[in-house]
Amino acid sequence: MYTFPSPPPAVVPQTIFPRHPIFISTMALSCSRVSHQDQTDTTMPSPSPPFTTGLSVRLASRTGTLQTVTSGLAPTHLQANLIILPSRYASDFRLLCARNPVPCPLLAESSSPGSFSSLRSHLTSCSGVPVDVAADIDLRRDAPGYRVYRDGKLLSETEQRDIVAEWTDDHVGFLIGCSYSFESALSRAGLPPRHVVMNRNVAMYRTSVPLCPAGVFTGGTYVVSMRPYRSAEIERVRDVTRPFVQTHGEPIAWGWEGSKRLGIRDITRPEWGDVVLREDGKTVFREEEDGEYVPVFWGCGVTPQNAVMMAGLGGTVMGHAPGHMIVLDVREGGVFELE
Amino acid sequence: MYTFPSPPPAVVPQTIFPRHPIFISTMALSCSRVSHQDQTDTTMPSPSPPFTTGLSVRLASRTGTLQTVTSGLAPTHLQANLIILPSRYASDFRLLCARNPVPCPLLAESSSPGSFSSLRSHLTSCSGVPVDVAADIDLRRDAPGYRVYRDGKLLSETEQRDIVAEWTDDHVGFLIGCSYSFESALSRAGLPPRHVVMNRNVAMYRTSVPLCPAGVFTGGTYVVSMRPYRSAEIERVRDVTRPFVQTHGEPIAWGWEGSKRLGIRDITRPEWGDVVLREDGKTVFREEEDGEYVPVFWGCGVTPQNAVMMAGLGGTVMGHAPGHMIVLDVREGGVFELE
Repeated sequence: MYTFPSPPPAVVPQTIFPRHPIFISTMALSCSRVSHQDQTDTTMPSPSPPFTTGLSVRLASRTGTLQTVTSGLAPTHLQANLIILPSRYASDFRLLCARNPVPCPLLAESSSPGSFSSLRSHLTSCSGVPVDVAADIDLRRDAPGYRVYRDGKLLSETEQRDIVAEWTDDHVGFLIGCSYSFESALSRAGLPPRHVVMNRNVAMYRTSVPLCPAGVFTGGTYVVSMRPYRSAEIERVRDVTRPFVQTHGEPIAWGWEGSKRLGIRDITRPEWGDVVLREDGKTVFREEEDGEYVPVFWGCGVTPQNAVMMAGLGGTVMGHAPGHMIVLDVREGGVFELE
Repeated sequence: MYTFPSPPPAVVPQTIFPRHPIFISTMALSCSRVSHQDQTDTTMPSPSPPFTTGLSVRLASRTGTLQTVTSGLAPTHLQANLIILPSRYASDFRLLCARNPVPCPLLAESSSPGSFSSLRSHLTSCSGVPVDVAADIDLRRDAPGYRVYRDGKLLSETEQRDIVAEWTDDHVGFLIGCSYSFESALSRAGLPPRHVVMNRNVAMYRTSVPLCPAGVFTGGTYVVSMRPYRSAEIERVRDVTRPFVQTHGEPIAWGWEGSKRLGIRDITRPEWGDVVLREDGKTVFREEEDGEYVPVFWGCGVTPQNAVMMAGLGGTVMGHAPGHMIVLDVREGGVFELE
């Protein structure tokens, strides 16, 4: 059983945790929980009703009764990042995902331009049978919060409840996998990610690893999420996350050599999310290469959002508000070959 | 119409072309034509019979009447790199391809361990219908030449005619896409790759861009092929090669900035293949960033072979001899949305 040297405090005193500034320069954080600094976003969902299905989360979002982040809701159901583009960019974006499936795993998309309730799924069961992501879905209302960009500029820092007014017959929605699933699996395997234990946001970094370009989407690089583990745990961590093919799968790099290969300059300064801390409030990586933990890096759903923002697209681009994911009907066991 | 400043000589005098040493440290060159230094490999196929179908090439290889490289045979038919592994590595290799589809496009594989004539295709038509790669195929005999490695060591520099004796019930064969197809398309578009015009091998380079690891396959990096073009031609070159999704597709980087981002130290010293030359025998890139041409880089089929060799696998691993590809029934137009 995996344990930290001493159990983390149940309530984390704000004062002993020096917060690192969060640089939200992309359209939205991925499925990762948003920073504690954003009080609106971190309002935890009401404990009742207990959301046990993706549909219950979507309906509560659709009717406006759920306006919070979706972290922890409807366990074992896949949650998805949402990106909505003018149709003229759709084929290039689809190709971007196909060429970079680890950071940009495309789960489903509008079956045709303008379609917000009929989706074409790219998921299959372990035996290769196509799997629908959701039977009753409305991309305009089923995330608990949205962000809208016009000609590359965010219209408002406050998330919108829906995008019914902004959606046009020319829009195409894309659902991208997120790492909630494998975090649960790591916890079940006795390897809980440290930020989960500490109730913080996962640390995310820009890298120098180029994405394979696709049409208008050029110059992008991988964004990675990082979870610290002991060296002896890495092979087990790789094994546990490997089956989660459509939610980033196994790590793309680990250890200090891996960190250098990704071009990460300072592990204590993530571009998004929170610094990883010890129980005494100091960074896990204070001693760098002499410490007990080494960084382990996964492809991150911020990658395609970052690529979209870098492409400087014209027109109206939309996405879920940070942490306010669309929760699907499909469950982990239905699409991943789990142990 | 694309033209070089002056037409290349019909017969290239050996003396004016200073050959760069070729460092063949991987199991086999990809589908690219082999170097002129290897006289055995560069024996051009007899002009008769004219091979117009993949089956005719495979049957001639199977009966031993064709023992040469397959460059230019059965135009518009897909040609494939062949990698054969002990079954215990098959799922990791399949995952390596799935996570890195641009340099490692998996076309088909043995339908079960030991199967050399029944293949499971991963190709679909433009409308999504599964497409068989070949109706009558024998992975043990249908390449005009093979190489065999035992515990990571090449058994003989001389290629074998077949691997009937070495194939076991435990072997799994994989067919990986190659770039012959898009080279023809570039030529048809008036943008013939310079090495084709000069009748040389394409230049290939190791990069520092990490592959996404998969199981036993860790630490690999992209290998790229390079074709020089004028800056003004790059967008057209991207457009022409973009549809060839299963044969590396559009370039992954271009220009001198792109070259740096890939970690290429010296463009005049490719790790495999030939230096790109001007008509006077000097390198195209002699003047580096001041020259008329800039380098354009594509994912390369040497990548998975390199990853296999780096993994230090035990047992018997086999592949096609450099340039001696398996030619398939499927044609470009059947799987790519061409202009």
